[in-house]
Amino acid sequence: MTVLAGIAGFRGYSGAELVGLLQRHPRVTPVLLEHRTDSEERPRPKGHVGPHRLPCTGEAVKEAGVAVVFLATPHEVAMELAPDMLAAGAKVVDLSAAFRLRTPDVYKRWYKEEHSQTSLLWEAAYGLPEFYRSRIAGATLVSNPGCYPTAANLAIRPLKEAGILDLNAGVVCDAKSGVSGAGRKASLKTSFCEVTENFSAYSILDHRHVPEVLQNSDLEEGQFSFTAQLIPIHRGILETIYFRAPGLGSASALVEIYEKRYAGEPFVRLYDAGKVPDVSAVNGTNFCDIGVKYDPANGRGVVVSAIDNLGKGAAGQAVQNMNLILGFPETEALL
Amino acid sequence: MTVLAGIAGFRGYSGAELVGLLQRHPRVTPVLLEHRTDSEERPRPKGHVGPHRLPCTGEAVKEAGVAVVFLATPHEVAMELAPDMLAAGAKVVDLSAAFRLRTPDVYKRWYKEEHSQTSLLWEAAYGLPEFYRSRIAGATLVSNPGCYPTAANLAIRPLKEAGILDLNAGVVCDAKSGVSGAGRKASLKTSFCEVTENFSAYSILDHRHVPEVLQNSDLEEGQFSFTAQLIPIHRGILETIYFRAPGLGSASALVEIYEKRYAGEPFVRLYDAGKVPDVSAVNGTNFCDIGVKYDPANGRGVVVSAIDNLGKGAAGQAVQNMNLILGFPETEALL
Amino acid sequence: MTVLAGIAGFRGYSGAELVGLLQRHPRVTPVLLEHRTDSEERPRPKGHVGPHRLPCTGEAVKEAGVAVVFLATPHEVAMELAPDMLAAGAKVVDLSAAFRLRTPDVYKRWYKEEHSQTSLLWEAAYGLPEFYRSRIAGATLVSNPGCYPTAANLAIRPLKEAGILDLNAGVVCDAKSGVSGAGRKASLKTSFCEVTENFSAYSILDHRHVPEVLQNSDLEEGQFSFTAQLIPIHRGILETIYFRAPGLGSASALVEIYEKRYAGEPFVRLYDAGKVPDVSAVNGTNFCDIGVKYDPANGRGVVVSAIDNLGKGAAGQAVQNMNLILGFPETEALL
Amino acid sequence: MTVLAGIAGFRGYSGAELVGLLQRHPRVTPVLLEHRTDSEERPRPKGHVGPHRLPCTGEAVKEAGVAVVFLATPHEVAMELAPDMLAAGAKVVDLSAAFRLRTPDVYKRWYKEEHSQTSLLWEAAYGLPEFYRSRIAGATLVSNPGCYPTAANLAIRPLKEAGILDLNAGVVCDAKSGVSGAGRKASLKTSFCEVTENFSAYSILDHRHVPEVLQNSDLEEGQFSFTAQLIPIHRGILETIYFRAPGLGSASALVEIYEKRYAGEPFVRLYDAGKVPDVSAVNGTNFCDIGVKYDPANGRGVVVSAIDNLGKGAAGQAVQNMNLILGFPETEALL
Repeated sequence: MTVLAGIAGFRGYSGAELVGLLQRHPRVTPVLLEHRTDSEERPRPKGHVGPHRLPCTGEAVKEAGVAVVFLATPHEVAMELAPDMLAAGAKVVDLSAAFRLRTPDVYKRWYKEEHSQTSLLWEAAYGLPEFYRSRIAGATLVSNPGCYPTAANLAIRPLKEAGILDLNAGVVCDAKSGVSGAGRKASLKTSFCEVTENFSAYSILDHRHVPEVLQNSDLEEGQFSFTAQLIPIHRGILETIYFRAPGLGSASALVEIYEKRYAGEPFVRLYDAGKVPDVSAVNGTNFCDIGVKYDPANGRGVVVSAIDNLGKGAAGQAVQNMNLILGFPETEALL
Repeated sequence: MTVLAGIAGFRGYSGAELVGLLQRHPRVTPVLLEHRTDSEERPRPKGHVGPHRLPCTGEAVKEAGVAVVFLATPHEVAMELAPDMLAAGAKVVDLSAAFRLRTPDVYKRWYKEEHSQTSLLWEAAYGLPEFYRSRIAGATLVSNPGCYPTAANLAIRPLKEAGILDLNAGVVCDAKSGVSGAGRKASLKTSFCEVTENFSAYSILDHRHVPEVLQNSDLEEGQFSFTAQLIPIHRGILETIYFRAPGLGSASALVEIYEKRYAGEPFVRLYDAGKVPDVSAVNGTNFCDIGVKYDPANGRGVVVSAIDNLGKGAAGQAVQNMNLILGFPETEALL
Repeated sequence: MTVLAGIAGFRGYSGAELVGLLQRHPRVTPVLLEHRTDSEERPRPKGHVGPHRLPCTGEAVKEAGVAVVFLATPHEVAMELAPDMLAAGAKVVDLSAAFRLRTPDVYKRWYKEEHSQTSLLWEAAYGLPEFYRSRIAGATLVSNPGCYPTAANLAIRPLKEAGILDLNAGVVCDAKSGVSGAGRKASLKTSFCEVTENFSAYSILDHRHVPEVLQNSDLEEGQFSFTAQLIPIHRGILETIYFRAPGLGSASALVEIYEKRYAGEPFVRLYDAGKVPDVSAVNGTNFCDIGVKYDPANGRGVVVSAIDNLGKGAAGQAVQNMNLILGFPETEALL
Repeated sequence: MTVLAGIAGFRGYSGAELVGLLQRHPRVTPVLLEHRTDSEERPRPKGHVGPHRLPCTGEAVKEAGVAVVFLATPHEVAMELAPDMLAAGAKVVDLSAAFRLRTPDVYKRWYKEEHSQTSLLWEAAYGLPEFYRSRIAGATLVSNPGCYPTAANLAIRPLKEAGILDLNAGVVCDAKSGVSGAGRKASLKTSFCEVTENFSAYSILDHRHVPEVLQNSDLEEGQFSFTAQLIPIHRGILETIYFRAPGLGSASALVEIYEKRYAGEPFVRLYDAGKVPDVSAVNGTNFCDIGVKYDPANGRGVVVSAIDNLGKGAAGQAVQNMNLILGFPETEALL
């Protein structure tokens, strides 16, 4: 006996990843919510039968008894769909940025527009289970974190909590992402010939993911420098995070902070002191891998944090959140 | 003392390559012909001063005394611009498909539309210098060959002329191209995530470049099978061509046919029998590299033909043609 | 209750893929057979516990009661290990070329050495289930097909059986593979800078996989031309196959031949007439996808056949064969 | 009338790039110095005649009257060859790390071995023309800078000289390089399948290029954090450099510092405030492109510095240095 899980935006990269994960999930039957045909579907072999389809309306969702709806759409669309889906009795996991920031004024500053669903903004749980597990479990609307903030917060927050950071020096997060992070749409910027044999920085110091890191790692804007960069690969994120933490004897002390914080966490993996993950260590998984290097003589440290932007950075974490809000084992379909 | 060479479509990949080649050309000053802003220009360093710009009109071209105009635009645009530029007194090298086929009915069959400039169709010289050098030298309108047909005709025509092909068995040309062959524009099909880690065939048996091979290598449609394929690289074409030629003693006999045919040709390079070029052998050049393998016991042969689709397959060959029509040394700016 | 499956060569690309598939298999527990450390293992997160390890000897395999041994090693090593493992009571699925050809003289011609285990050569079942299912099911030694021949035979043999091929014209198979097909080892030829932005042909007309196609598709050498080529991607094979088959009314007639032949086959997928698969359609799967195009006026046809060289071309098919010889459901761990 | 320029290590990526540049140089004739065949040469078209070859000995160099020798070899080999070549009367441009550090003890700390040519260490000019032009012009031995330090020093040193850096906060340099930076040799780490669709950090905080930045930008070790990372591209370096510089009104103030420092420099290009270069802006060139972003509210700044690791990061800069020591125009063969 399975429950129905609707996916809006199933043609995009995160949406397609979600469909794949949910098809392997023993307690769920995915249904595709037809909203707009903004990107083409891939050709299929003869006889291909995909998941059932429904119109992307509250009515259809209610009538079919859909238990949970994933919004893998642009944030403007998600902001419009979320209230309807909640009213239709479905729980909602929103993969867009619509409900990630805690207050309308922060939203307005970074997204340059008034938030049209402020009551939902207050209500949404921020879907980073390693820090908000119980709040997520009781929520009807979960705001799935951005890909960059997921890797950043999992790496930075334990250091902040441990009180070891030199906040005057600040934290630098140099982030790199595969191209699927930009979504599935025709665009010169993400066309093959512009990206291959290239590497470029964008949104230096003013990326919209910055406030998600500030609010969840408890940093001030002046304490955090962030640059996003495009790697010529399909999927994967690697963040190289620089900080000062004088007086730790060795990198092992840093590893211990993480080990204590993440004991029992199924999706955070640590490395021996001095070893760090690469992108291929996490691709196709829901893991966040974290490794550290430390210079005791000068108190400088570096953390490398790696996730799959379509896994822990989007669809994987969304399924993890669904497992929590529906009371399923948290790792179902993800290991 | 240099002459002015105008480039329409200078923001595209072939157009940009042309600008680069012409900037190195000692007898030419390039000017950019502003037509439409269909693709963005790349950001430039401070103080960057590119070539002078003119409106893309016959009037401006006439007034400025532009000697030659390159049309690196879609074929519909080229068909419209060519008569104006010729009327303005410029010679024209058209990189599009507008004037490549000899007769309007063949054009109509493959391009599904009436040709609107049939008199120019008759007049245009087909710009493959290795076969039509003297005709090109005397022309005012040169139709620069397609990228696939350039590599195919240079490989196939000498074998056809030598009378060694078993035409009942036919000739198979399996062609592969880098993505810049599709032009510089936003398109889901050529977006990074759709192309990387992929390889796909398209226009199997019905590519518009087929009639260009038939007419220039003197083959019947039933004697020639052609498939185009997309390699996840920026630039470069490799064509693997299969045929039967019973009774040749060895691969060397094939190499000799090419050596005889291309003696003195500056842009065709041959390989020792049994050796073949790869894409990187020709990238960034105006060369067509040709190598052969042969099975004497069964009379089967394979030719591998490699060009840079932006070099000998487009901008390089266009400059070679310009050199011919303006009476410059043929290899100027190309070696 | 599971059985033990040993993997020799687990550090290579096929071996690692096998380990991954077997870890998901509900009836099997993988064990790693330590043979030689010819390629490094990747760094692992703290606390990583991989499968149990055993020495790669018949003794260890016998003592542990290993039910089946996969040989993902060079063919020389497999030829040496196979008799020991069989003597130790294990069934063997050999992913190398050691036992693929039917007779020692054909082996000697293509591999330039005497076969040292001719009795096993006679005994081995050729592991292409779509054609030799019952023979495989009863075998103790299965020779897993080469990657190129898998895609080629699944595409060509039904046409040969149907008697529609013009054998005088012959069959051309232009094959392209991702770089993992060359194995995991340090080599200048497969180093990143030599492969990226390149595309190259190798083993033209004399690839060692040719006799595997001839013997299983029942073709004479003079009827079959084959070229292997390297695509700058990690994994995936696409083969473009050209033939003449006069008198078929349309591509649909070809699709029907395949549909009849592969009715009920779980791992062959067909496309509508005129549609063909690309590499990404099959990556990470055990499918062989087949699509056709046909020119009725001239009787020329093209088949495009796509597999994952590490899936249906190696580890996937090896697991399929294991399922058959151990009496498990054929698709277990593969869908 | 040209002078002879010898190249040791001409089969490597930097060496091959040098050969290409020197072949275009009107005042130089390149000769290949045959030392060891550690990497294969690429196949060549028939009739290919490369530069003349000599044994890589002082004797041969002296006899032929070679004016300048480039050492594009591992640093151990360069350390051995340099004295012989100088004794043979040639000037030497060494592309290896043999003579880059100012003192033997710093060399020993980072290279874990005694320096065997300390007198040459004192004598060598550090070949960064933007800072040491006159010293280079008078030198007989020029030590060509490392690729990472070139991009780093050109970006950082003007800020240090301007006295605007908050040195307590320190400078972070997050550096990324294409794979050719690792040299042309068979290695599992740089094999295609390990690199493609991956991105990895290495030598975090302890890269051998660090002391080159410290000594030339006048920073203490505790003030500088550096991580090297591998981009899956052939060539190109991008460095993202973070710092604090309170009290500047805007990014323009930073641009002005660079403009003043680099006025008249032919190979440093700047961008408008807020714009930054990407890797493709400099590929195939000898430029270093520099762009900045600044947050006036918090005094945080970011500089992006891009070079081609084979251009300004190796062969291009080596030719620039040769032009200086031989009294040729500095930009010859480089624009």
